[in-house]
Amino acid sequence: MKIAVDAMGGDFAPEAIVEGVVMAAAELPENVAIVLIGKQSLVQELIQKYGAEAVTNIELVNADDVIEMSEHPTKALSQKPNSSIGVGFKLLKDGQVNAFCSAGNTGAMHVGALFSIKAIEGILRPCIAGFVPQITGGHAVMLDIGANADCKPEMLAQFGEIGSIYAQYTFGIERPRVALMNIGTEEQKGSLVAQAAHQLLKDSRKINFVGNIEGGDFFAGQADVIVTDGFTGNTMFKLGESFYTMATQRGISDDFLDKTNYESVGGSPILGVNGNVIIAHGISSPLAIKNMISLAIRQVESDAYTKIAQALS
Amino acid sequence: MKIAVDAMGGDFAPEAIVEGVVMAAAELPENVAIVLIGKQSLVQELIQKYGAEAVTNIELVNADDVIEMSEHPTKALSQKPNSSIGVGFKLLKDGQVNAFCSAGNTGAMHVGALFSIKAIEGILRPCIAGFVPQITGGHAVMLDIGANADCKPEMLAQFGEIGSIYAQYTFGIERPRVALMNIGTEEQKGSLVAQAAHQLLKDSRKINFVGNIEGGDFFAGQADVIVTDGFTGNTMFKLGESFYTMATQRGISDDFLDKTNYESVGGSPILGVNGNVIIAHGISSPLAIKNMISLAIRQVESDAYTKIAQALS
Repeated sequence: MKIAVDAMGGDFAPEAIVEGVVMAAAELPENVAIVLIGKQSLVQELIQKYGAEAVTNIELVNADDVIEMSEHPTKALSQKPNSSIGVGFKLLKDGQVNAFCSAGNTGAMHVGALFSIKAIEGILRPCIAGFVPQITGGHAVMLDIGANADCKPEMLAQFGEIGSIYAQYTFGIERPRVALMNIGTEEQKGSLVAQAAHQLLKDSRKINFVGNIEGGDFFAGQADVIVTDGFTGNTMFKLGESFYTMATQRGISDDFLDKTNYESVGGSPILGVNGNVIIAHGISSPLAIKNMISLAIRQVESDAYTKIAQALS
Repeated sequence: MKIAVDAMGGDFAPEAIVEGVVMAAAELPENVAIVLIGKQSLVQELIQKYGAEAVTNIELVNADDVIEMSEHPTKALSQKPNSSIGVGFKLLKDGQVNAFCSAGNTGAMHVGALFSIKAIEGILRPCIAGFVPQITGGHAVMLDIGANADCKPEMLAQFGEIGSIYAQYTFGIERPRVALMNIGTEEQKGSLVAQAAHQLLKDSRKINFVGNIEGGDFFAGQADVIVTDGFTGNTMFKLGESFYTMATQRGISDDFLDKTNYESVGGSPILGVNGNVIIAHGISSPLAIKNMISLAIRQVESDAYTKIAQALS
């Protein structure tokens, strides 16, 4: 198994990325290698700085260009085919790697996935899944957390299906509880889109729909999959992350609060595409990168994207 | 000044309501009286249970009926004119009280306000404002937090104006900073509605628009007014409230965290109507009711709703 990592993407790239990759490499299963993509001489130097000299499970692939965080995704991808993101998707599309991860330009990662490995047939819109720690243990898969600010009810219903399959195969949860984020528990509550989505989710035989949950249930352990549009999902997810900041500022730490740290999972998969693509926070630290690689391995092993494709075919 | 309080509305009514009113009555300014609306004998008994016998600043008004939390707002209001909510709005409309507060059926409070004192001319849709504690001190006024799940850009722009006037007069903030909740700081980010609202807010000369904020900025002190639709606002507000639960479960308390307790403000005004209407959490405790009454007094003194009407005329 090969996990490709964009060495050049992220606010603290390439240093933080290479350091995280070296940390991950020290604990990799034997059958896994990391393919680090970026300016070869620079990356090589950093591997030597952070790693043992005898790192055998990191391969380097050169990419001369970098897509900056502020660049327009589609334009940048077509103008910079030799960027680390461009090269990463080429490797993924050609089957030379099993997953591609980056803390770089989120839009470019999304567009790159759509243009290279493409959406799974039958998927209305790929989405980004976030992992929301639950006070009862584990994480709920929340989708969408930002790819689609405007959603139709059918998209939300499909997020429910995709999330359910992902939770089942990647987290090993039998019959995941799928809930709709809404502003009331009664089925007639919410926006027109949420009301219609509720009916579609309720009528779906493919999922175990448990009804609406509210904002106060975000961490409450009532669902394994939280369905929402990318606008609500993004604002809630980021608000949820600020719990950790509040906790650390007060010197408080426990199992649950530690999981509210973005570093603990390290990445968010793009779901609904023909492959494993994981995007990380721009601010990713070495620890976040290390954990993102663990997530990538888990996802490759689970083969969730193939299961999603099978469910839709 | 007379503040009417629905004795019968709320999960712990009438006990918690009456206890809170008695607490408030002990500290009221001389020119303020509370008008307690509900089943007279029951309320009378509770006043004696919780209060000194010589309470002179609480008046009782009888209301034989109660609108239950689960009832359909419009139907219940027309079928139960003698409910505590029905009577409260009658008193407010007739100018016999200066504000009406209830922890009862939120929908009935909203519909009651629209049917009795009515929306201010020029208001597209009244909304509910929530107070979001800021780590820099004070609160931001967030609107809408639940009355309008589906919003048009023009509604959001107007929320910005209403919120700005409210923050100025009720909180005494000069040139309140108005921000739009969005999923990115750049102006082209977000849903179609958020993008269009951004332009309207930016072009408005009536407000001090400071641009978009994100979910992670919810408590960050970057805005005095947070504009959002009632769906996003509701989910975020409720998620924000769960900070307090997390903190108390861990025995943590400080100035900021204490303010994340819903009890610290105790109520949310309906803005954009011709009068002072405040709704409280169904779970309201006596302390929450007491603080809701303080908010009502502050609102009556600020005369914010008249200022809003003047700005729109």
